[in-house]
Amino acid sequence: MKGSIIVFGGDGYIGWPLAMHLAMKTDDYVVIADNMSTRILVKSVHSDSLTPISTMAERLKAFREYTNRDNLVFEPVDVRDMKAVDDLIKKYQPTAIVHLAQQRSAPFSMIDQRHAVYTELNNIIGNINIIFAMARHVPGAHLLKMGSMGEYGTPEIPIPEGDIEIEYGGRKAKVMFPRFGQSYYHLSKIFDTYNLKLANGLYGIRATDIMQGVVFGVRTHETQIAEELCTRFDFDSTWGTVINKYVVQAVLLHELLIYGKGRQTRGFLSLYDSINAMTLLLENPPKEGEYRTVNQLDMIYDTLTLAHMVAEVAEEYGIKVTMRQIENPRVEKEEHYYEVEHTILPSIGFRREKEMKDVIREIFEDVLRYRERAEAMKHLIYPYAKWRSSYVMDNEAFSLPPEVERPLGREEILRLAGFR
Amino acid sequence: MKGSIIVFGGDGYIGWPLAMHLAMKTDDYVVIADNMSTRILVKSVHSDSLTPISTMAERLKAFREYTNRDNLVFEPVDVRDMKAVDDLIKKYQPTAIVHLAQQRSAPFSMIDQRHAVYTELNNIIGNINIIFAMARHVPGAHLLKMGSMGEYGTPEIPIPEGDIEIEYGGRKAKVMFPRFGQSYYHLSKIFDTYNLKLANGLYGIRATDIMQGVVFGVRTHETQIAEELCTRFDFDSTWGTVINKYVVQAVLLHELLIYGKGRQTRGFLSLYDSINAMTLLLENPPKEGEYRTVNQLDMIYDTLTLAHMVAEVAEEYGIKVTMRQIENPRVEKEEHYYEVEHTILPSIGFRREKEMKDVIREIFEDVLRYRERAEAMKHLIYPYAKWRSSYVMDNEAFSLPPEVERPLGREEILRLAGFR
Repeated sequence: MKGSIIVFGGDGYIGWPLAMHLAMKTDDYVVIADNMSTRILVKSVHSDSLTPISTMAERLKAFREYTNRDNLVFEPVDVRDMKAVDDLIKKYQPTAIVHLAQQRSAPFSMIDQRHAVYTELNNIIGNINIIFAMARHVPGAHLLKMGSMGEYGTPEIPIPEGDIEIEYGGRKAKVMFPRFGQSYYHLSKIFDTYNLKLANGLYGIRATDIMQGVVFGVRTHETQIAEELCTRFDFDSTWGTVINKYVVQAVLLHELLIYGKGRQTRGFLSLYDSINAMTLLLENPPKEGEYRTVNQLDMIYDTLTLAHMVAEVAEEYGIKVTMRQIENPRVEKEEHYYEVEHTILPSIGFRREKEMKDVIREIFEDVLRYRERAEAMKHLIYPYAKWRSSYVMDNEAFSLPPEVERPLGREEILRLAGFR
Repeated sequence: MKGSIIVFGGDGYIGWPLAMHLAMKTDDYVVIADNMSTRILVKSVHSDSLTPISTMAERLKAFREYTNRDNLVFEPVDVRDMKAVDDLIKKYQPTAIVHLAQQRSAPFSMIDQRHAVYTELNNIIGNINIIFAMARHVPGAHLLKMGSMGEYGTPEIPIPEGDIEIEYGGRKAKVMFPRFGQSYYHLSKIFDTYNLKLANGLYGIRATDIMQGVVFGVRTHETQIAEELCTRFDFDSTWGTVINKYVVQAVLLHELLIYGKGRQTRGFLSLYDSINAMTLLLENPPKEGEYRTVNQLDMIYDTLTLAHMVAEVAEEYGIKVTMRQIENPRVEKEEHYYEVEHTILPSIGFRREKEMKDVIREIFEDVLRYRERAEAMKHLIYPYAKWRSSYVMDNEAFSLPPEVERPLGREEILRLAGFR
């Protein structure tokens, strides 16, 4: 029997190119498990992917046709469905599981109470369901879980990779690095870390908990095989990440929107590098029973410096941009210390695949190509979710779609995925 | 219009005597909000309160008759019901809210996956629902939230009351004291702390986050007014706390069950002192917009020393007990450092009300009185939930009651509370 890897969330921005990449590298089955909710959630804020993405059914057909490989498959599973997750893991007995099936946006979690609750529930329960099913059926398998550098916040001390020793009251203790996030989304990722760490201690789950920086870019090697294989690209204020957003702003507005002072400093990595890093982590799993924290980033920048870099590349395309400082909808330090240890990935062979400016050029190419689609969504560039007024129960302009409030069933997911 | 205080979870072991105490001390309305689930959950592990507790309808009637006070009222609200919590807080506009409406047992959360999920959901969502409704309707009110000393685990350094300054990489930072719990229950309390702290920063919720030690005892001043006003007393391995359990073991088994080495050290306080401490905290709220962490405990003991103390009191009742070391079902350090700062409560006037041995004597009186009820549940003394095998989906001997998997409705709760 062939081996297998399950990619929960394999329809997403990172999940889809990762699943293809793994299917190219191995003869094992790569099983995409998804409930297709990313597409529903993006539409619920009246937005869409800039790149015209195919349905899952079309994606798999195109992948088979262009690559002649038959090891990429789809399973309609909602990660919140305890029984469905259990059945899936029991059926495939995977050697590794990648967990990306989470609500992935901080601003989305800050729209109102319903979005906050949805985010925490979806993320916590999905993670627990995977952990418990692994303990039952594949206790030796490797769980590669996507967390966020945002779990650390922006502390005044360097961020380590793993536990630290601290001194207090004249004594020393090794403790989990103290985490704090500034959105319900970031807290949900912290909660996942806690549940995973507890489960590792209790059941010996072998886990890599990825603290990922901000990902940018639109292409990977596999997405360029054919147009139907492109991944999604979000640029609105809810789903877009900063560099991707800047490029669209450059093309459409000729001005880049800077949140507050723009000295917010974060770790970044390209989509290529995110895929490569996760592949390396799968090829170099932690030891049996080990829980490993990995800071997955390549470079550290503040958002104003990045704006200037995007502006420089814009000039190559004949676009002259200005900067506009706008009120920061988030609650975050706008000027702060930031230093991060990240040595595990380099130690297992991680090297930057493309320079940042080259990736920014690729984004410009694709944004210019789909400029008309972007124009139609231009108004979504401006942020609307204000952190400090997120306490409303229902933000009626951006209602949480009722169909995602409960786990979706197999038939419903197959319809959403274009198989029915 | 009269003022009001809402006590979520006012049917519970601590909630009921606290609600009565507050109703005696103030002329404000004291509103008990509960879904009566504690009673359902206790029965689901085939157990019951040793003390024969009245229905909520009977409790309120008796309280009115014996005290001539009409300010204690009941509202059938499930804390997981976003709309019901919102309506309640909007209606009463309370100046303070006590939140005790949580799944309160670590062993219960470790029965199986369903119990783990239920515990985290119930606790997280209830807490979020209260926080958001407060931000909307009573942004200046005081939230007194019950957490647990178990949020800290048993670190090798002293446990402070609030944030600490740590040094790392040659720099200093003030951080939340690093927490880690050894059960899904304890993690749920950590998650509450995170959500509350974030909401405090975003909306300025004035909050006291109580890190409470282990409570013991069966009586308070108000429960002794009349038999119908007694509070529940649990002694089985799921719901009982260690001193309460020991007394029942002394009476029924003539031996005390020591988990492992018995050098597990914790903070303790009597039920009298828990009620007094919370009353003091309500009378001395934090400043506007302040988030306050309070370590609520009176004394620190290890479980073996407590066993010897219970054994001594047992002799006064002519009971000669032995100790029996049993395999520890929990995952915890059995010999460890433990030191806790707790100065806030003493600084606002907290003093121990009764000596531990006197409280233990009261427990003996009541256990001897209800000995026959205890005999019928004798087998429940032995622990069954084993931390390391908690990964099963359904532990069929102790199934999660399906009626609590969704929020209960008003009519259903009124029936459970004896009003229908």
